Amino acid sequence: MVSWKNFDTLASYEKLMALKGRVDLVEVMSGESGAKRVAEYSVPMALGMKYNFAAKCVDDEILGALQELADEAQLTQKYEELYNGAVINTGEKRLVLHQLCRGQLGKDVICDGVNKRDFYVGEQKKAADFANKVHAGEITNAAGEKFTTVVQIGIGGSDLGPRALYIALENWAKQNGRQKMEAKFISNVDPDDAAAVLKSTDLAHALFIVVSKSGTTLETLTNESFVRDALKNAGLDPSKHMLAVTSETSPLAKSADYLQAFFMDDYIGGRYSSSSCVGAVILSLALGADVFAEIMDGAAESDKLAKDPDIRKNAALIDALIGVYERNMLGYPCTAVLPYSQALSRFPAHLQQLDMESNGKSVNRFGEAVNYVTGPIIFGEPGTNGQHSFYQLLHQGTSIVPMQFVGFKENQAGMDVVIQGSTSQKKLCANVAAQIMAFACGKDDEDPNKSFAGGRPSSIITGDQLTPKTLGALLAHFENKVMFQGFVWNVNSFDQEGVQLGKLLAKRVLAHETDGALKAYADMFDI
Amino acid sequence: MVSWKNFDTLASYEKLMALKGRVDLVEVMSGESGAKRVAEYSVPMALGMKYNFAAKCVDDEILGALQELADEAQLTQKYEELYNGAVINTGEKRLVLHQLCRGQLGKDVICDGVNKRDFYVGEQKKAADFANKVHAGEITNAAGEKFTTVVQIGIGGSDLGPRALYIALENWAKQNGRQKMEAKFISNVDPDDAAAVLKSTDLAHALFIVVSKSGTTLETLTNESFVRDALKNAGLDPSKHMLAVTSETSPLAKSADYLQAFFMDDYIGGRYSSSSCVGAVILSLALGADVFAEIMDGAAESDKLAKDPDIRKNAALIDALIGVYERNMLGYPCTAVLPYSQALSRFPAHLQQLDMESNGKSVNRFGEAVNYVTGPIIFGEPGTNGQHSFYQLLHQGTSIVPMQFVGFKENQAGMDVVIQGSTSQKKLCANVAAQIMAFACGKDDEDPNKSFAGGRPSSIITGDQLTPKTLGALLAHFENKVMFQGFVWNVNSFDQEGVQLGKLLAKRVLAHETDGALKAYADMFDI
Repeated sequence: MVSWKNFDTLASYEKLMALKGRVDLVEVMSGESGAKRVAEYSVPMALGMKYNFAAKCVDDEILGALQELADEAQLTQKYEELYNGAVINTGEKRLVLHQLCRGQLGKDVICDGVNKRDFYVGEQKKAADFANKVHAGEITNAAGEKFTTVVQIGIGGSDLGPRALYIALENWAKQNGRQKMEAKFISNVDPDDAAAVLKSTDLAHALFIVVSKSGTTLETLTNESFVRDALKNAGLDPSKHMLAVTSETSPLAKSADYLQAFFMDDYIGGRYSSSSCVGAVILSLALGADVFAEIMDGAAESDKLAKDPDIRKNAALIDALIGVYERNMLGYPCTAVLPYSQALSRFPAHLQQLDMESNGKSVNRFGEAVNYVTGPIIFGEPGTNGQHSFYQLLHQGTSIVPMQFVGFKENQAGMDVVIQGSTSQKKLCANVAAQIMAFACGKDDEDPNKSFAGGRPSSIITGDQLTPKTLGALLAHFENKVMFQGFVWNVNSFDQEGVQLGKLLAKRVLAHETDGALKAYADMFDI
Repeated sequence: MVSWKNFDTLASYEKLMALKGRVDLVEVMSGESGAKRVAEYSVPMALGMKYNFAAKCVDDEILGALQELADEAQLTQKYEELYNGAVINTGEKRLVLHQLCRGQLGKDVICDGVNKRDFYVGEQKKAADFANKVHAGEITNAAGEKFTTVVQIGIGGSDLGPRALYIALENWAKQNGRQKMEAKFISNVDPDDAAAVLKSTDLAHALFIVVSKSGTTLETLTNESFVRDALKNAGLDPSKHMLAVTSETSPLAKSADYLQAFFMDDYIGGRYSSSSCVGAVILSLALGADVFAEIMDGAAESDKLAKDPDIRKNAALIDALIGVYERNMLGYPCTAVLPYSQALSRFPAHLQQLDMESNGKSVNRFGEAVNYVTGPIIFGEPGTNGQHSFYQLLHQGTSIVPMQFVGFKENQAGMDVVIQGSTSQKKLCANVAAQIMAFACGKDDEDPNKSFAGGRPSSIITGDQLTPKTLGALLAHFENKVMFQGFVWNVNSFDQEGVQLGKLLAKRVLAHETDGALKAYADMFDI
């Protein structure tokens, strides 16, 4: 049995506190010492990718203490409990099973007589069959014409993850002749969001996927209604254009309003749901079921590697532990995610939800306040764009922000140009290499305004190319990293009670049941 | 004469330090006290907009001390110096004149015999004339056909600001029949960025604007070359499709490679350049010169209001001062920008550059290290999307993140739907009102996991609708806020030396002039 203890009650917590600040990044990353670190401080990831942490403020002794922490906090054993079907989401009394969408890591997980792996795979297969029929013209619009566009209507995890994955592969798919349909997304309750998407969509040839586990998400139902009105106004029958992704018990599940319903359950949280039908339906329709299967294969590789208790062989684990060290020992409140890949332009927005919604908590799994800081603030934009924007503060500001870079040797589109003796792709890669060293070592200058103190830590994940498989591996890497960090902080990474109060008060405003300041704010908008 | 002193040498600094923490937000925002604060803690902005700071951790005494700070640090006098043409950008020995694009706030500014207001307005007029001719079909492609698409090639300030403004008005323009051409943007040196835009663009009917003040920005020149190749491969003459926005002394200025060149100068920094030709050319082409003029009119209104030394009448000033109080007295490292408007989806990315590149500095105007923290980390996504993502941490995480909300009574597209008794727009507004109160006052619950501590400060900017004028007013509000904060911190908000080291090292990597860790990182990418 594993035991769940607060981070600050562990022996390794004190040990790490005693070691903090012993690494001078400028010193260790200079000269031959730096080259040696880059060679040694590397952990293999799935599919030939690597996690390199040479430019983090750690040394062998700190790594030893982080391994002790991993062991003492039983991080991989807790992962094992999770994938074997323990009630890890204590607050909501739920299992946590998103990894089962991607492979059978441990024992069969049977709930109410259902093998959950079979259930998830069965729904993925339903999505694949449906997508194949749409692509083959066996499922068409009322006029017998092929559907060309698919629009996801969802918010939060029903939007950010699938959107980030689609954007990540859109160009790759076009380049490789794999794109089947154009995908679009409607999320915000702001009516301007739906209006913009609908205006640019050929409704007669569009499928709409309504994604809501409960079938009661207000934003999503509102946008669904918006879309239904538009379809009717165009003389179309909404029930021939709309799909539902929902739980089997939701009002959407057996409604004749939908062409077909696909099912998920309570054991996969929204921010982890790209691997479920929430991602499967739209990605199979847009890019093909084979592409979605490849994403799952890549994710499964990462999930397997995350089982290793040795932090030098488990990239998600060591990434998590270094992040904890930076947060709790070094006191850094933020982490920037900086992919040197335009295709990953919305991946930071997905990670922002994944990380901040999972570990932005102040109570432990037992509902007791913790005495240490938990999840960091996550933000990021793709490089090199960020270099011409907020990197100024990262280099010379008064706050230190640890960074997580991602880079690939090859681009996706296969188009490139040689300028001043190098391709764009080489320039892109040269920039990320240069940034890591500029942040780590800085530079002295007679003019203090041109000096760089250095000492700004970063890690980098490298791969050959962003493909469905490597994308899946990245997705699961970060999910597992966040899971391990939640285990260290002893929080429940799988609920989100912090979203409830705002919902409650918004309902009161709409019902005009307000007084005091809330009424005054509502009055600003003539509600 | 104004005097430039470090923040911590001012009497008001000590006074504010002594006052910190005296406001219990839960208490003051509850009941009638809260309603009173919402009524009183409001400052008029341009065009009927308002800045409300009721839910900030301030009271009349702190506001008094902030007024003393404004006076002692001579903030509005420094602004006056700036717009009258002083060398405010000390590091680069440059004037700071972006406000001159929008109006004549003070004396004529004459440089080398040129009236700078005339120069900027002249270039805006050139952009307007050019755009009008394109729209009228007087300037066409070689086949005599109208141009339908305009693509901006630029990075950093040549991308983020104009892109955010275009996205903010795209739907408004479509709704009101004001859109003239579709606008697209290429920024990243990642070749996948240009490839994706080019694949979806009808090259024969596209104009490309190369934006680089120096004419030497590597990313932009690389992408320009990419586009030139694509045009040639399509049998088109690039010189008939390309425009330049650059300085008069750049290699692009008088080149026959461009259909026309438009000029800016060193006195408007990239992140402030949306008001110059950097924004004027693309926005005049895409939305019409009259729309660009309205943006400028709105900005001019904000600029005028920013002259008032009374913090209760100057929204940019009080917004700046409260931000300083939160950063230096309360110790909060981040600020979240949360527009409840899908149209402002990329406005936070613009503000991220504006703020972090301007004030992410560690030395004062004289190149001396400062002993206090400066510019915060800025991030944000539109509501209600963020509510279903990172708000969990904002509500219940261990870090407090001050928030800046923006909301409008009316949407842009004029389409809406009534569900459960309210329109989408009312739901959107109800949510922002509810969030402010949830963050400020929280909620006790027997289950600590469902408790909200409250005490999380926010402000809100409200307006009737996001239009060109109100958008311009918002743009200038934030520029002026950042300027005032830079004055308080005594930093030069108008240079960006922090971007240089990375550029230098990237060049070395591409020239294979590396050793140690830098070589090891370059080797990862086979450079």
